[in-house]
Amino acid sequence: MQQSNTALLIIDVINKMDFDGGEDLLENGLEMIDNLHTFKQEAKAKNIPVIYVNDNFGLWQDNAEEIVEECRKGRGRPIVEKMRPANDDFFVIKPKHSGFYGTQLDILLTQMGVDRLILTGLTGDMCVLFTANGAYMREYDLYIPEDLVASEDKKDNSNALQIMKRSLFADITPSVAFNFEKVMNQ
Amino acid sequence: MQQSNTALLIIDVINKMDFDGGEDLLENGLEMIDNLHTFKQEAKAKNIPVIYVNDNFGLWQDNAEEIVEECRKGRGRPIVEKMRPANDDFFVIKPKHSGFYGTQLDILLTQMGVDRLILTGLTGDMCVLFTANGAYMREYDLYIPEDLVASEDKKDNSNALQIMKRSLFADITPSVAFNFEKVMNQ
Amino acid sequence: MQQSNTALLIIDVINKMDFDGGEDLLENGLEMIDNLHTFKQEAKAKNIPVIYVNDNFGLWQDNAEEIVEECRKGRGRPIVEKMRPANDDFFVIKPKHSGFYGTQLDILLTQMGVDRLILTGLTGDMCVLFTANGAYMREYDLYIPEDLVASEDKKDNSNALQIMKRSLFADITPSVAFNFEKVMNQ
Amino acid sequence: MQQSNTALLIIDVINKMDFDGGEDLLENGLEMIDNLHTFKQEAKAKNIPVIYVNDNFGLWQDNAEEIVEECRKGRGRPIVEKMRPANDDFFVIKPKHSGFYGTQLDILLTQMGVDRLILTGLTGDMCVLFTANGAYMREYDLYIPEDLVASEDKKDNSNALQIMKRSLFADITPSVAFNFEKVMNQ
Repeated sequence: MQQSNTALLIIDVINKMDFDGGEDLLENGLEMIDNLHTFKQEAKAKNIPVIYVNDNFGLWQDNAEEIVEECRKGRGRPIVEKMRPANDDFFVIKPKHSGFYGTQLDILLTQMGVDRLILTGLTGDMCVLFTANGAYMREYDLYIPEDLVASEDKKDNSNALQIMKRSLFADITPSVAFNFEKVMNQ
Repeated sequence: MQQSNTALLIIDVINKMDFDGGEDLLENGLEMIDNLHTFKQEAKAKNIPVIYVNDNFGLWQDNAEEIVEECRKGRGRPIVEKMRPANDDFFVIKPKHSGFYGTQLDILLTQMGVDRLILTGLTGDMCVLFTANGAYMREYDLYIPEDLVASEDKKDNSNALQIMKRSLFADITPSVAFNFEKVMNQ
Repeated sequence: MQQSNTALLIIDVINKMDFDGGEDLLENGLEMIDNLHTFKQEAKAKNIPVIYVNDNFGLWQDNAEEIVEECRKGRGRPIVEKMRPANDDFFVIKPKHSGFYGTQLDILLTQMGVDRLILTGLTGDMCVLFTANGAYMREYDLYIPEDLVASEDKKDNSNALQIMKRSLFADITPSVAFNFEKVMNQ
Repeated sequence: MQQSNTALLIIDVINKMDFDGGEDLLENGLEMIDNLHTFKQEAKAKNIPVIYVNDNFGLWQDNAEEIVEECRKGRGRPIVEKMRPANDDFFVIKPKHSGFYGTQLDILLTQMGVDRLILTGLTGDMCVLFTANGAYMREYDLYIPEDLVASEDKKDNSNALQIMKRSLFADITPSVAFNFEKVMNQ
């Protein structure tokens, strides 16, 4: 297993967005997706493992490809296509909101030697927040670049980021100022 | 085991408050403690089980009385004395922020037949929020009377309540308007 | 989600068997695989959901098809081909021995309304036993037809079945005498 | 928090034994209790933390002293009195069979830096076996001195020890030959 003290989690970007509020989420997601795509490439260039942590959208067959195909049919298609996982990305399917609940995520991270996490994706006030809580209780250090997280409502997104900053001591420095070396060597 | 579809959780009110920000928390906690005390008596009168869900404050002996005694020595004493658990209250010691993480809470609630939870206590933007997230993923309906939750900072408390209302569909009707019968018979 | 009070778990039959003792396991597995195949068809005819609960064999991409393809390359090929999951079977990938550890299994079963489990597969003294323990603590009733479970060593398999019968109150009636209606209507 | 790579778990010796089979368990427990008592003293002399992991016997108040008092009233009294926990022993109350299910045990061990566990107590074919399974999946090395574990039935106890030895790679060297230094320095 690849060893790394840092991992990048990309949460729920493979997303049908076929729900109330999905249009707003798509709009806010599209605003951040170029930054997230660039950030993902930078992380991979530094050999940081990239782990998609994604809702199962009602599919319980544990089949990543099926989830990607299913979500491509929905409103979120432009984001799905931009962020399609590569063969060497990890893909953890979550049945609920936190990436740590009912998944192998903690076991995978432990095997990799990860103790600091970069959280990105959708939505800031829900699955990112829940996953951040789960990570904090398991004593991971948290980095949540504020421009790489989006929600349906911008005010709710901003409130959630403040809570993660204040209650979970997350570093929310935006991606443009993110210093991978500093994080990895801390 | 006593059966009830509803339970009242009282989170972290047995609290030393000997940390940075503890003075603010005490002040905000004192503002709500009479309401919480009254609400607890009303719940008991309706045979709703009362479950303290409380930090261990570094004690790992699973001994509720020791935790109460230890916390009485701290800044939080007036709240500890007002809210001292009765012999027929349940006491679940949690090692981390969510009442569901590393505890028997979910097993206890399942044995009681509980599927709706009233969350109260400290702090709204931390242990109440984390516990609410854990409860939501386990499909409990949530009631979080907004005047029965306090945090160090009132703005953060209010933000957290908004997130619990919007993201977790919690009913945050204040205690004065809380209708126990309606909740229990829903 | 399909509702059923009973589910059939098929544990680790998608298996490379490329480890010490794999030859013995293959031999013992082949002895039971016709019975298991027949039993699976009977369960499906009665609309009992079939859930493969399977090791990830070092693949963390949550991709059932990749695991099946990878395991077809190993010693276990005849069993993999016989027991290849159908499109309407569920597939839960487990990272460790118990099907309940680091997986969505309990959430899936709860959503289905399952409270009784039929456990089958490999190996009786390891992953079936661990999964049975996890199920017992979550208060599922257990049925483990003794001829549908195999291990590397027949004596160990038999010891494990005795422990599951005595300690977990599992019904180990062999498949030929298994009465689906009785189980489902109990 | 005290740091140690090794911890001694003492499982369910605080036990009413007021159930079917309790007489046999008492008899088998009494046979091993002097060895266990001596072993505990040796572990404490080497600063190995001692953690009681004990059933709640229907008490959900998380109060160790109450559980000890309650169990003293039962058939298990001679063992309870011999093995009464000291003030500096840890006491983890478990609601189910595995010490890792619905408890803070894993969090406590992680904070202590423990990665190897000595398991002792009651019963070998049930709570010790379940706890061993939980420990193995969390990657603790296991030592289970065979003379420090008892069950209602000696044959079942012996079968369970064989499974823990073969499937979990537990070292079951008896206590008289147990080499604390070797374990701690491995």
